[in-house]
Amino acid sequence: MEMTITKNNYKIIDQNDIDFLINVCGEENVIAGNNISEDFSHDELGGTENYPEVLVYVLETEQVSKIMKYAYENNICVTPRGQGTGLVGASVAIHGGIMLNLCKMNKILELDYENLTLTVEPGVLLMTIGQYVQEQDLFYPPDPGEKSATIAGNINTNAGGMRAVKYGVTRDYVRGLEVVLPNGEIINIGGKVVKNSSGYSIKDLIVGSEGTLGIVTKAILRLLPLPKKDVSLLIPFPDLTTAIETVPKIIKSKSIPTAIEFMERDVILAAEEFLGKKFPDNTSDAYLLLKFDGNSKEEIEKEYAKVAHLCLECGAYDVLISDTQERNDSIWSARGAFLEAIKASTSEMDECDVVVPRDKVAEFIRYTHDLQTELNVRIKSFGHAGDGNLHVYTLRDDMDDEAWGVKLKESFDCMYKKSRELRGQVSGEHGIGYAKKGYLHESQSEPYMDLIKNIKVAFDPKNILNPGKIY
Amino acid sequence: MEMTITKNNYKIIDQNDIDFLINVCGEENVIAGNNISEDFSHDELGGTENYPEVLVYVLETEQVSKIMKYAYENNICVTPRGQGTGLVGASVAIHGGIMLNLCKMNKILELDYENLTLTVEPGVLLMTIGQYVQEQDLFYPPDPGEKSATIAGNINTNAGGMRAVKYGVTRDYVRGLEVVLPNGEIINIGGKVVKNSSGYSIKDLIVGSEGTLGIVTKAILRLLPLPKKDVSLLIPFPDLTTAIETVPKIIKSKSIPTAIEFMERDVILAAEEFLGKKFPDNTSDAYLLLKFDGNSKEEIEKEYAKVAHLCLECGAYDVLISDTQERNDSIWSARGAFLEAIKASTSEMDECDVVVPRDKVAEFIRYTHDLQTELNVRIKSFGHAGDGNLHVYTLRDDMDDEAWGVKLKESFDCMYKKSRELRGQVSGEHGIGYAKKGYLHESQSEPYMDLIKNIKVAFDPKNILNPGKIY
Repeated sequence: MEMTITKNNYKIIDQNDIDFLINVCGEENVIAGNNISEDFSHDELGGTENYPEVLVYVLETEQVSKIMKYAYENNICVTPRGQGTGLVGASVAIHGGIMLNLCKMNKILELDYENLTLTVEPGVLLMTIGQYVQEQDLFYPPDPGEKSATIAGNINTNAGGMRAVKYGVTRDYVRGLEVVLPNGEIINIGGKVVKNSSGYSIKDLIVGSEGTLGIVTKAILRLLPLPKKDVSLLIPFPDLTTAIETVPKIIKSKSIPTAIEFMERDVILAAEEFLGKKFPDNTSDAYLLLKFDGNSKEEIEKEYAKVAHLCLECGAYDVLISDTQERNDSIWSARGAFLEAIKASTSEMDECDVVVPRDKVAEFIRYTHDLQTELNVRIKSFGHAGDGNLHVYTLRDDMDDEAWGVKLKESFDCMYKKSRELRGQVSGEHGIGYAKKGYLHESQSEPYMDLIKNIKVAFDPKNILNPGKIY
Repeated sequence: MEMTITKNNYKIIDQNDIDFLINVCGEENVIAGNNISEDFSHDELGGTENYPEVLVYVLETEQVSKIMKYAYENNICVTPRGQGTGLVGASVAIHGGIMLNLCKMNKILELDYENLTLTVEPGVLLMTIGQYVQEQDLFYPPDPGEKSATIAGNINTNAGGMRAVKYGVTRDYVRGLEVVLPNGEIINIGGKVVKNSSGYSIKDLIVGSEGTLGIVTKAILRLLPLPKKDVSLLIPFPDLTTAIETVPKIIKSKSIPTAIEFMERDVILAAEEFLGKKFPDNTSDAYLLLKFDGNSKEEIEKEYAKVAHLCLECGAYDVLISDTQERNDSIWSARGAFLEAIKASTSEMDECDVVVPRDKVAEFIRYTHDLQTELNVRIKSFGHAGDGNLHVYTLRDDMDDEAWGVKLKESFDCMYKKSRELRGQVSGEHGIGYAKKGYLHESQSEPYMDLIKNIKVAFDPKNILNPGKIY
């Protein structure tokens, strides 16, 4: 079993601790030492790797509370874990200790039609929620590509996804939370209420805190009526700059599509190979993919006709309209597979998840193109042109360890520096976790980082909950 | 000059301090002692009263920073102040010290069409923003009744207003902030970016913090395209219960109006008298007032026809449709004057601003009706039926000091208790300030209140910024 050198004086797990955990959760839910699967030593992207000393599956809030009380009293560190689909090492037990797996707490507890809320346990999957509410003609708008993430994972990174242009991000759909604090106390925040100005917004502090301030054990989500129609437009452009520079013009035209994604030919080709399925078109260098939704065909048509016209004026080759469910599914599932497809095309990669103002996306992407040549490394990207959130990947290919370390650092240093220049932020939706801490520190002033530290201390004075992340 | 007995060991302002302030801001912007107008000893609702020792008008962020540094070093307490339109004493200098008036920092700095953002100084009025962006066919959705509040005041209470049903609250429209911390450091949070997952959301902590964590000196607001059409429906019902019980049915029908307000006949009569203008109808006991907006008449018509039909099925007498600007203005300006009208009808009053789940509004209002009889006191209400945020007023009329003290406490104790039973929150949009602290404490658990305290300490370890509020 691999261990980090920095144990920060946390108590090493011993048989007494294991016995306690078995007593709380049952033998079948406690897995120790060498019996822990390799899966739990890293997240989706690798890079950050370490094993927990013990992996515990919890089934109810009371168990989480008991374990945190015990960990607090005994100075044991705890890492909460969902499906492990994160990309920044936030769910990796870098100091060992207990990994609390919440995936078995996966019940949908209540759909309230009069308040339009859905109450769920933390381990419910995003795809389960989507399907469940859709069957009731309702809609949970946040739509990250990774549908097998847990809802608590989404809450902890404030996941954004593709519909953020029109509908906002996860934060905007969390009405209430049940949270277990580092000392084991259980608090309830918010509720089914639509407005709230009752003291500091602890709810909004927990959202996006990557499991470092408290453990989400229940969430009350806000739903919307399901839009009755949606139409997607796939719009080929001669080059990426022309494509992306059209986006601020769409916004300026006072049209708000549901989604505006950009993609390049080589990423589409990688997705075709990965999925073994053809994309509707792959002949152009660059594409915008737009979605419009609404309650009637006429309403949407008026909107997208205006935008289609604008795109053609801005140099688009064509506008391919997709309004059948089948065709939409095929386009958007290809889009959802981009990360996996790029990953499959190389030996290792790391992601830069910056967000920049919408009118700076073209400049940033052009910069990464130049960087690719300058540094002689493959850099691939796609992302949410409509909200300025880019997913840019530096690929290892056949570099050796040393070359890869240098190249990765060089390319990331350049990209985060460029993002700062453009008044962007380090992460749009994937968080800081362990891997991006240095870049957060560089991007923020000292007084700002002091606040981040002070807030952590306010919640977790012993620094036992997911230590070494964010700060 | 009136002083509180609790000075908490803050330094008393002396001539050296005054000289420092004059040096920073100029003589014309520093008003001390007896020269301070009575207006600055209270807010809109009175109840909480005390004079600052010195009132300072600031003109730029650097001045705010210098004053806070000085106050921090010298242990002087500081109360930030906008237009003083608050209702819970949050902008009253209950410990004396410096009152920082930000109303002269009232410039609109930038309208960015490509990112759809508006950058403003803190003292810009809500009505100024509304008008400015409307002239550019843009839209700042938050719409509290009090249009002469400053934007920073709205940010500090996370003001909601009438369009929250469809568009959300102030928090949802704040993209970035410049904030001066209690020690004088200036930090920038967020920016023009649409998504952000870069560490704890300090932005969302400042929003709604009632000037206790930092002083907002600049804000970047998110705008939307202006909806091209809106239509209002005034719907008379035989009684308030029937009216309000229709609201969850509207939500359940999957229609999301822009606004759903409820009002009773006697409040309408008070508004007519206050404004000297007739409301379109005052013959029924209770009304719902709905607004729908969208980009075409047809789009809105389809939506409101469905809801109008539903209201008639639920017992409405009629549905009065208002689609001219003039008539809409007259209805909504009457609605905007309800608070002032009730205030003018009595000698003194206090407000209960609870928010309950949408399906509990009818139960809560019925309870206040019963309470009126039971306690023999006038209790008037109106509010946002669509988002569950109620404004309920206990009126003093001709009670003497002692009777008023007892009656107010009795009625408020009952109402906040009822709200807790219904899983409501103490404040939907007006905040906690000084006046509602006790009720916040009663409504929250000890671990929750400990977090509130710890967060305050994380930002303001010397407790010099707006002390005695919220916690």
